[in-house]
Amino acid sequence: MAPATPMTDEQEIRDLVARWMAETRAGNTPAVLELMTDDVVFLRPGHPPMRKAQFAEGAKAQQSGKAPTFAGNSEIQEVRVLGAWAFMWARLNVTATPPDGGAPVRRAGYTLTILRKEGGKWKIARDANMLAGE
Amino acid sequence: MAPATPMTDEQEIRDLVARWMAETRAGNTPAVLELMTDDVVFLRPGHPPMRKAQFAEGAKAQQSGKAPTFAGNSEIQEVRVLGAWAFMWARLNVTATPPDGGAPVRRAGYTLTILRKEGGKWKIARDANMLAGE
Repeated sequence: MAPATPMTDEQEIRDLVARWMAETRAGNTPAVLELMTDDVVFLRPGHPPMRKAQFAEGAKAQQSGKAPTFAGNSEIQEVRVLGAWAFMWARLNVTATPPDGGAPVRRAGYTLTILRKEGGKWKIARDANMLAGE
Repeated sequence: MAPATPMTDEQEIRDLVARWMAETRAGNTPAVLELMTDDVVFLRPGHPPMRKAQFAEGAKAQQSGKAPTFAGNSEIQEVRVLGAWAFMWARLNVTATPPDGGAPVRRAGYTLTILRKEGGKWKIARDANMLAGE
């Protein structure tokens, strides 16, 4: 039997993105928090930088059923590995469904993400999210 | 006389940002184009990715006096050098002045930028711009 081909860093990063989307859709906050570094910074238009603790708070509100749930897909445009760091940019589509049965809202745009390998695992370290309403 | 201290990569990157802002304010498009790699990608909300040729086109419109002129300042929050690559994020304030004498428009927000050292000079390689109206 041929030995399993070791995953490349690029494939591991693509898998990280797929897991991020799946765990977000499933509302599995602990699993999503495992996919980011402790010093992660999320940047978005019209908001101050968001750190890991605030991300966890936001996810808690979501699980309480008082905030929209999110589902989406990310089409990766480029991944570049730089040793223990990497960057990627992607086209992201997200559908937010309000908890009150209101109409889902679609948003689309690009993301630019810095990743870092920690303990053999790639994690999101800095993230710029340029989603806009459609 | 003490020898001059060589500039660190971080200082060179800070100088690049300062030159970018100054040359943009001066409308010196050739100088601004020198500060980015040929494969640069600019990402913004609500727009498709912009490459170097489109950046140059946009700058030409500006110099014709038919587009707003821009002045701003960038407060760098973090610079991380990764060999011949680096990333930084910053708080950016921009004032756009219309060519027709209309009121200036202020915008603010964050940027996340990937830089690459080419021929001994740091250049902007990927840029996420999350400016929003104030």
